[in-house]
Amino acid sequence: MADYTFYTNPMSRGQIARWALHEVAADYQHVIVDWANKPEAFLTANAMGKVPTIVHHAPDGDRVVTEAAAICLYLAEMHPEAGLLPNDAETADYFRWTLFAAGPIEQCITSRALKFEPSGNQEMMAGWGSFDRTMNTLEAFLTDRTWVCGTRFTMADVYLGSSIDWGLTFGILPPNEALVAYAERIQALPAYKTAKAVDNALIEAMKK
Amino acid sequence: MADYTFYTNPMSRGQIARWALHEVAADYQHVIVDWANKPEAFLTANAMGKVPTIVHHAPDGDRVVTEAAAICLYLAEMHPEAGLLPNDAETADYFRWTLFAAGPIEQCITSRALKFEPSGNQEMMAGWGSFDRTMNTLEAFLTDRTWVCGTRFTMADVYLGSSIDWGLTFGILPPNEALVAYAERIQALPAYKTAKAVDNALIEAMKK
Repeated sequence: MADYTFYTNPMSRGQIARWALHEVAADYQHVIVDWANKPEAFLTANAMGKVPTIVHHAPDGDRVVTEAAAICLYLAEMHPEAGLLPNDAETADYFRWTLFAAGPIEQCITSRALKFEPSGNQEMMAGWGSFDRTMNTLEAFLTDRTWVCGTRFTMADVYLGSSIDWGLTFGILPPNEALVAYAERIQALPAYKTAKAVDNALIEAMKK
Repeated sequence: MADYTFYTNPMSRGQIARWALHEVAADYQHVIVDWANKPEAFLTANAMGKVPTIVHHAPDGDRVVTEAAAICLYLAEMHPEAGLLPNDAETADYFRWTLFAAGPIEQCITSRALKFEPSGNQEMMAGWGSFDRTMNTLEAFLTDRTWVCGTRFTMADVYLGSSIDWGLTFGILPPNEALVAYAERIQALPAYKTAKAVDNALIEAMKK
């Protein structure tokens, strides 16, 4: 049995987890989840019925991880040899921007896709304030910076990079120079390309 | 100078960070942010203009952390002597439920407070699926479980616990038995009580 069972769908946030699995060179087997007929073992692992979900078959028992950002953080911890964990000085940026992507950026993208935007006083209640505030903050951060933690690629880039790559591809995030340049650096990474090729091939096969 | 400068407002998600600061016995100084007149140093640290924001005055320079969940994760890492980091077997639950709180629960609370709920096909796009799906998953998890990682309190409980405590207090989360019992365990913790007393005193003072 592979070390990880990976429940996913090629047209989903599962692409983030696949890239993370390839970054740490994890031994995994995927199970493609058909939305109309979700496998029982999948729903037992994650009652939300959401992908990505991974089950790590650890020596001391199975461990379930859900939420794409949590899967990234978990895999970095389990595979320190991949060198994707932050050092002491990088830890602040590592967690800050992973959670900025899981919070404000995710909410920006979702709220815009679902055609709901906070206005007026709602900006105080909404953790992301507004779409423009989040985008301006993100753009200012990425200007003059190669990766989240500075000059070294870490797992934080897998999650933030996936969010930006997805948002630009679907035209939800503005194609500002700093965002586009960062997405291009992401797209040139070997593990990104390998993972993307697997999902693209699955998507093609589903069309037939 | 204190080790941390903590930008907050007593009536905000800043309460989460204050509790985390007390859990690790951090040496901090707070700066109360007036929404109508945000300090320049605060906006420089966090262009989002959102609290909580902490600035860690580390020996190698200042480090900014934003997003309440990231502040929790960061403080646990910086203060291992507090014993709030997960061990190997606890790591999956630690990240999974911190991100479940930062993602699905946060979005449930925000969308309900702002009177926006996904419906029909939107449930597939929305990471939290629906309010009921998130609540059922959370309730099932907390039944028969003392803390996020099992029997040992970790930093994941500070963030998940704050979300549940806040949601129950404001009547947004349903007062189900498992949620209420967990919130009561949270409210009995010494650092929770100390931090809450500071914020409550500040709120009282603001009323005068």
